[in-house]
Amino acid sequence: MAYSGEPILAEDLLFRPEHSLIDQSLHSRLGATTTNGDGFGIGWYGEGAEPAVFKSIEPAWNDSNLREIAGQLRTPLFFAHVRASTGTAVQRSNCHPFRHGRWLWMHNGALRGFHETRRDLMTAIDPALFPDLEGSTDSETLFFLALTFGLTDDPFDAVARAVGLVEDVGRAHGVDHPVQMTVATTDGESTWIFRYSTEGQSRSLFFSTEISRLRDLHPEVPVLHQLGGETRFVVSEPLRELPGAWNEVMESSAGVVRPGRDELRAFQPIPPT
Amino acid sequence: MAYSGEPILAEDLLFRPEHSLIDQSLHSRLGATTTNGDGFGIGWYGEGAEPAVFKSIEPAWNDSNLREIAGQLRTPLFFAHVRASTGTAVQRSNCHPFRHGRWLWMHNGALRGFHETRRDLMTAIDPALFPDLEGSTDSETLFFLALTFGLTDDPFDAVARAVGLVEDVGRAHGVDHPVQMTVATTDGESTWIFRYSTEGQSRSLFFSTEISRLRDLHPEVPVLHQLGGETRFVVSEPLRELPGAWNEVMESSAGVVRPGRDELRAFQPIPPT
Amino acid sequence: MAYSGEPILAEDLLFRPEHSLIDQSLHSRLGATTTNGDGFGIGWYGEGAEPAVFKSIEPAWNDSNLREIAGQLRTPLFFAHVRASTGTAVQRSNCHPFRHGRWLWMHNGALRGFHETRRDLMTAIDPALFPDLEGSTDSETLFFLALTFGLTDDPFDAVARAVGLVEDVGRAHGVDHPVQMTVATTDGESTWIFRYSTEGQSRSLFFSTEISRLRDLHPEVPVLHQLGGETRFVVSEPLRELPGAWNEVMESSAGVVRPGRDELRAFQPIPPT
Amino acid sequence: MAYSGEPILAEDLLFRPEHSLIDQSLHSRLGATTTNGDGFGIGWYGEGAEPAVFKSIEPAWNDSNLREIAGQLRTPLFFAHVRASTGTAVQRSNCHPFRHGRWLWMHNGALRGFHETRRDLMTAIDPALFPDLEGSTDSETLFFLALTFGLTDDPFDAVARAVGLVEDVGRAHGVDHPVQMTVATTDGESTWIFRYSTEGQSRSLFFSTEISRLRDLHPEVPVLHQLGGETRFVVSEPLRELPGAWNEVMESSAGVVRPGRDELRAFQPIPPT
Repeated sequence: MAYSGEPILAEDLLFRPEHSLIDQSLHSRLGATTTNGDGFGIGWYGEGAEPAVFKSIEPAWNDSNLREIAGQLRTPLFFAHVRASTGTAVQRSNCHPFRHGRWLWMHNGALRGFHETRRDLMTAIDPALFPDLEGSTDSETLFFLALTFGLTDDPFDAVARAVGLVEDVGRAHGVDHPVQMTVATTDGESTWIFRYSTEGQSRSLFFSTEISRLRDLHPEVPVLHQLGGETRFVVSEPLRELPGAWNEVMESSAGVVRPGRDELRAFQPIPPT
Repeated sequence: MAYSGEPILAEDLLFRPEHSLIDQSLHSRLGATTTNGDGFGIGWYGEGAEPAVFKSIEPAWNDSNLREIAGQLRTPLFFAHVRASTGTAVQRSNCHPFRHGRWLWMHNGALRGFHETRRDLMTAIDPALFPDLEGSTDSETLFFLALTFGLTDDPFDAVARAVGLVEDVGRAHGVDHPVQMTVATTDGESTWIFRYSTEGQSRSLFFSTEISRLRDLHPEVPVLHQLGGETRFVVSEPLRELPGAWNEVMESSAGVVRPGRDELRAFQPIPPT
Repeated sequence: MAYSGEPILAEDLLFRPEHSLIDQSLHSRLGATTTNGDGFGIGWYGEGAEPAVFKSIEPAWNDSNLREIAGQLRTPLFFAHVRASTGTAVQRSNCHPFRHGRWLWMHNGALRGFHETRRDLMTAIDPALFPDLEGSTDSETLFFLALTFGLTDDPFDAVARAVGLVEDVGRAHGVDHPVQMTVATTDGESTWIFRYSTEGQSRSLFFSTEISRLRDLHPEVPVLHQLGGETRFVVSEPLRELPGAWNEVMESSAGVVRPGRDELRAFQPIPPT
Repeated sequence: MAYSGEPILAEDLLFRPEHSLIDQSLHSRLGATTTNGDGFGIGWYGEGAEPAVFKSIEPAWNDSNLREIAGQLRTPLFFAHVRASTGTAVQRSNCHPFRHGRWLWMHNGALRGFHETRRDLMTAIDPALFPDLEGSTDSETLFFLALTFGLTDDPFDAVARAVGLVEDVGRAHGVDHPVQMTVATTDGESTWIFRYSTEGQSRSLFFSTEISRLRDLHPEVPVLHQLGGETRFVVSEPLRELPGAWNEVMESSAGVVRPGRDELRAFQPIPPT
């Protein structure tokens, strides 16, 4: 889940909504697994230029510290993630969001065949970035490949090249559908989102309708009057049922959410040359 | 889950069955909650007179150490429990099975209104036992009340008196249905089981049919030929579908499982005089 | 460690000083134990009327989340504690500071013979407060006794009565020196501190000299010019060597630190009547 | 600490000796750091051909599960390790001993400059072994380099080649003294030990005198009569003061401990050709 907008208390994002992320961690309706109990993480922008992250290997629904911090943390840009491991170890360094400098990254899905392709993918990472790898997941590797290909300059291009490489390496190892992903990444101001899978059947991803339009549609819903005009949510599953509130990101597309003008476009991997 | 019989490797009990306890911790079919991710514990008899316990607040399905130990631990009497907290903290001292001397105890269900009745129930515990209380759960308190009423001498009578007291104290605090429980407790040789709730709608509890009869019914099932003749399982949910294998413990009844002759009888709380 | 003064970033308190609390957790110079690796906790006042707490059973020096949060958390009143268990379990609910409503409490030392006196002390707690007990420590029990005796109205009197009761109960159980304590407790505005032990040999406790006087003494120390005029530290061990900076709280005394006028006075337990 | 000999209860190794490993984790006398609180691990041979490992990020002195398991686990070959991190994350996958197939490996010391050399060292690992890397430590990387160079066939040669490579890569990155190590590794029957550092000032390593000779020297020490004739300890610090009991492994040497005939020899890295 990614929030951007007026500074808001994290507990209003994590614990208040009807079908909140914490509920989803116990009973996902749309995810590949129904329980996301293999750790969680939050990332946010506050003091200083770089974001902070709080991650734990406990299930999110049990973590007392998460509740305490969520009640104290006010931020205009908030990432939250619950993890269902696809095979790599349940340890803090494998929890999302991942951070590099000013950037945060989170990924749902999997790089299939990663056990076999991991070495080739890791050696494709810029040697200057390599020492900062902390965990053992496919998701962090994909992040570092995107950084290698210029994420901080042109996110659309960099992710397209990273995905293209993963597909290329995957096929060389005989993997049928190497990439399954929804991704959100941010520099603290804009949030880029991606929905793509090699087989064209990606996990769900939604973004919220502009608050002004929602207020017109549902003048009786109090929370809409508390949220600022630039509020935008990107989620794997709608937080609450509200007709017109949630727009599915189309298959094979990418977008950027930012104050002012959002943008959605087609996404196509760029194979290595 | 309680196993008694020939010494067996714990991983054959925890990870091998089709609908194993580990599966059940993720997707319970009969429990009050579908996810039991608030810690787990195992207890067993091996070296020395007293049982050992291994407990953790991680979800059972994630715990690497549990897998390692289960592969090394061979025992004739094995208890295992996955927890879905009913409100008290997720901490090791609140995980089942609880131990006192040679005894182990585990409980599914709840003492309702425990937040209000806790003080009265704790002060009813034998002062000599009181210092050994380690956690904050209703389940451990029920165990210590049973110990106070003579669990080690006459388990049927002691549990009936403990339940009678809890109902009495609960009603004095205006609690409608104070007790909901299935309990298994053992001294390392016999295992006593209880199924009772004040409202007469207790959680499920099953015990396994004698292996010799199961072998006659299902001569084609290999595992039945590996299990010893005295094998007995007590479980909240059947471990695998096998016609004739699982017998439901009737509402408001108690029993004892031991080498030779098992016994089932009606269970009725004994109110304080 | 207790800080009060201008809002300050917690990392400036926890990680910056020369002999910081984190260093002390690894290499205490004055404590009864040299390593305080049995959990830690911080408490602070920020959003809302009640303080937040962040506690963990990992050693403070290892906790990545502590570093993240400390870099984001700005507060005018900050408590931090590293624990060396005197026998009770290492679990979150046993970590300091303890909280009740607007109040925080932390304790160094021990109620001796607590294993034996625990039941009598717990039953002396106000039944209305009893359900809020979360852990199993002597320190939390002492807090709840102080609350029972009116901590929120008159802290000096309430702690004197709580200590008097503990000594009385301890002696009835044949304990020679029942109380060893330094305590800090706060309602978010004032901080009360206590240094007392039955045997008259209490653990160390220091409070910092007024910043204006320290600036006169050490005009060359930059940090003194960054700290506000109302800054006050209460610590078990001086944070850095600075002549004139640290004043030992005398044996058997108590005090209150608050904006404006501090106060120190003799402390004497009030036995039960 | 490595034990080989008659099957023995792990708690007799971990908790009984005067200056046990658990004590050493709190107050090391000879180590580079005095506190080893950054996780621990044990490995042993029992059921099945492969060893089991139990590892945790809690300090060893606090881990209740370790005490429980140590009281149940009887083994003829036991490895135990307490960790003081040299910079990499405190997570289970970074705890020693590391396992591969039938082999265990533990390392005290550091590969200096590892942050910079990590990528070159990882790419030197046999691609077939690469996917089994689980953590991010220098120690596990050294293990996998040794496996790459034939550890399972000729441990002396493989470790010499691995160390030679690390020194070569380190120097290429301008690292003065790339290797500091004591290592113990075993296939379940023999234990190979190494003491080496580029600068010739390695951490301490001791092995125990034959039990029969110790019995002659100290007929009055009861424990010597309980230990079997083939008992051998390899430790970083002597477990108890006993004249004649502990022999320091010389600088730049290696050895093998096994039933029958031990062997000590000079150790010299073999640079890559």
